[in-house]
Amino acid sequence: MARTRLVVVGGDAAGMSAAAQARKRRGPEDLEIVAFERGRHTSYSACGLPYYAGDIVKDWRDLVARTPEEHAKQDIEVRTRHEVDHVDLDARRVRARDLDGDRVVEEPWDLLVVATGSEPLRPPIDGIDLPGVYGLSVLQDGIELRKAVDAGPERAVIVGGGYIGLEAAEALVHRGIPTALVEAAPQVMNRIDPDMGELVSEAVRGIGVELHLEEEVEAIEGDGRVRAVRTAERTLEADLVVLGLGTQPAVGLAEASGIELGQSGAIAVNPRMQTRHDGVWAAGDCTEARHLVSGKPVSYHLGTIANKQGRICGINIGGGYATFPGVLGTAVSKVCDVEVARTGLSEAELVDLGLEWEQAAVDSTTRAGYFPGAAPIRTKVLADPRSGRVLGAQIVGKEGAAKRIDVFAMAIWNGMTVQGMVNLDLSYAPPFSPVWDPVLIAARKAAEQVERSLGEHL
Amino acid sequence: MARTRLVVVGGDAAGMSAAAQARKRRGPEDLEIVAFERGRHTSYSACGLPYYAGDIVKDWRDLVARTPEEHAKQDIEVRTRHEVDHVDLDARRVRARDLDGDRVVEEPWDLLVVATGSEPLRPPIDGIDLPGVYGLSVLQDGIELRKAVDAGPERAVIVGGGYIGLEAAEALVHRGIPTALVEAAPQVMNRIDPDMGELVSEAVRGIGVELHLEEEVEAIEGDGRVRAVRTAERTLEADLVVLGLGTQPAVGLAEASGIELGQSGAIAVNPRMQTRHDGVWAAGDCTEARHLVSGKPVSYHLGTIANKQGRICGINIGGGYATFPGVLGTAVSKVCDVEVARTGLSEAELVDLGLEWEQAAVDSTTRAGYFPGAAPIRTKVLADPRSGRVLGAQIVGKEGAAKRIDVFAMAIWNGMTVQGMVNLDLSYAPPFSPVWDPVLIAARKAAEQVERSLGEHL
Repeated sequence: MARTRLVVVGGDAAGMSAAAQARKRRGPEDLEIVAFERGRHTSYSACGLPYYAGDIVKDWRDLVARTPEEHAKQDIEVRTRHEVDHVDLDARRVRARDLDGDRVVEEPWDLLVVATGSEPLRPPIDGIDLPGVYGLSVLQDGIELRKAVDAGPERAVIVGGGYIGLEAAEALVHRGIPTALVEAAPQVMNRIDPDMGELVSEAVRGIGVELHLEEEVEAIEGDGRVRAVRTAERTLEADLVVLGLGTQPAVGLAEASGIELGQSGAIAVNPRMQTRHDGVWAAGDCTEARHLVSGKPVSYHLGTIANKQGRICGINIGGGYATFPGVLGTAVSKVCDVEVARTGLSEAELVDLGLEWEQAAVDSTTRAGYFPGAAPIRTKVLADPRSGRVLGAQIVGKEGAAKRIDVFAMAIWNGMTVQGMVNLDLSYAPPFSPVWDPVLIAARKAAEQVERSLGEHL
Repeated sequence: MARTRLVVVGGDAAGMSAAAQARKRRGPEDLEIVAFERGRHTSYSACGLPYYAGDIVKDWRDLVARTPEEHAKQDIEVRTRHEVDHVDLDARRVRARDLDGDRVVEEPWDLLVVATGSEPLRPPIDGIDLPGVYGLSVLQDGIELRKAVDAGPERAVIVGGGYIGLEAAEALVHRGIPTALVEAAPQVMNRIDPDMGELVSEAVRGIGVELHLEEEVEAIEGDGRVRAVRTAERTLEADLVVLGLGTQPAVGLAEASGIELGQSGAIAVNPRMQTRHDGVWAAGDCTEARHLVSGKPVSYHLGTIANKQGRICGINIGGGYATFPGVLGTAVSKVCDVEVARTGLSEAELVDLGLEWEQAAVDSTTRAGYFPGAAPIRTKVLADPRSGRVLGAQIVGKEGAAKRIDVFAMAIWNGMTVQGMVNLDLSYAPPFSPVWDPVLIAARKAAEQVERSLGEHL
């Protein structure tokens, strides 16, 4: 009997998780697995890249969970430096360019996993391709940024104040490089609400980053090499620029090959991670998932989702049955000692969906007020004004603050109301929490808001 | 119209929360509130006492959330040093002894809140009442223990290895006092499973505590003052002894007055915190609550429960409507840098209930493995072998480990299965978690166990 041939396009979290799971369930006598990866590396932590640039992580090899050689030991063949530029859905072949040998190969498949990930947004700004301008998406980007930082730049500018931009800013400041950050929006981290974002802006300024909000970058200037970043208000000198303008699903291959995209612009998949084409699967940043609060398809680019989707894809290819339930948009980050977390929908997202909400934001401490190390934590929760169902939550605070977001994620996941959260049996001891955990205080205040709002509508 | 008169017996978390909530909803023209407290202090954090003894908290006043004077400003009269020794349910009066004046007063009530708390277990061991032997239950105990520690004892023995015993041991070691701990059971912290308890025992030994397991105390020796603790195996010299043998609900007054107790031995209350007697309410450590996994009445003595129950009791007395849903037995503690947490049922509790379970325990790290500060965490989860419903969980690990127990508490609260937890959208970033949070890995392994067990029963 002929072996089934699985081709995986993309050798990071989603693709290689799918390959590994499929292999676990189907031996090499039954399933052949070949993965194509454009870069030199497989299965690495992209989230760790800013920390490698900042010398907090010393060796990039530590970011690699599994090398091509390690995959080979599981009978998963990885062809690195191979870029797949076409998928023939009828003939069931992929065409790949060997980026080193400049050779084109064609490979047949019975099953295909598209795991092409995401790519940094690169708007058509003059000078964006100048040497000295870095993205931070794949491991090679991190290695190159680290080299540039090691070379001792005079002054850096970060363009964009999302997670990556802020983590990069922290890394550069940590390395002693004077750093400015330019953000077009009125706040950094625009996936959280303005009142919470303000706390993060304060933290960013607090570590010495020169922060310019509401300034759009008009051009990156330079002559053979980056020299400055220009906005309408000012010109910021810089011999190092890092782009943190967000990411988009890398769907060029899918589009070119006729693989259907969904409403969000990412590849449409069902909960088993099947595309609308027979034998074609997809997982990770290039796919869309259902948002469990809004019900809408969304495209988030997070390692934790990619790993889960890859695993599910591999289980199904391996003959098992698993489904991806959807996402809440849970995310956490850190700017020096300030932790930031969110889950569910933000105010702006609720406005976009035409939804109303009640909210409460409370200031408390991470530990009992009298316990050494007790630090500020602000907890915000958004709830449906009629039912009290939790719609979203955000936390900004010092050490020990952010992971509490998981309690809200669990509440949303289970359809809980803020009223139903008030008496939750959460853990308490003075080194860990005030006797009323900040999460419970926020839920209680929001429940009072909901009751008040219901009273007004009687 | 005559004012309603509310008498509260017990001036700590439950009693004073009830008083404060009732006052918030009913002004002094409508409701008179008088609270009797045996000690000198009100509304303090009993959980903070070991940290005060250990000089981690410098001033006992910081443990007091609200003094009698502060309560008085809310028109809540507190009579400290008054011990209520009888409740007349028919005549609706309490009798209280003024411990300073040795005077007896009788006071009428329309509504009564019994919040007498819990008291340390003091088995009839020879010498247990010798000077130099300390309990650690009320604030005055903490003040006295601190004085004894400040006096520079030569050698201390802790009797009992529960939360209080371990926290006291850490405090004494922190103060530089050679300390031994004697525990009759084969492990410390017997509310967690033996395999997890072993990690805590290691931590206790690691900070220099001389640990003697499976040794029952036969006598406390001394001549006018404690000199040693004797077990079957050895005699441990000590000029300071701390009792950590657990607590029992303080129901002496309730029993003597004919207030009905429940199966657990604590005062029986409904979810609104009403006893079976008209006008008589009860809240906190002296009452029983429903365990949300076993369905059985239990009596746990934790500040977080007492505060919630007191608040609910006060809302109801104040004319509102609130109910206490029950408890999961969530608890967290810390022995130096080792954090310990649990929720739901342990193996021993499952055995007692005649229930079967599947389990998984996984070793992981608190942060991404490559991130500085990544520390060991062991996560254990117990699940129903047929449905996969989460029955309990335990965590032992270093900084950042224990608060994750709240995710399991949320899972149990919402009746989730381990299978249903595998793809939860929990927060991830390298400084906070591996890409697969230890909670998710444990759930996944337990889900595999459940599937295997179901396969075997086909």
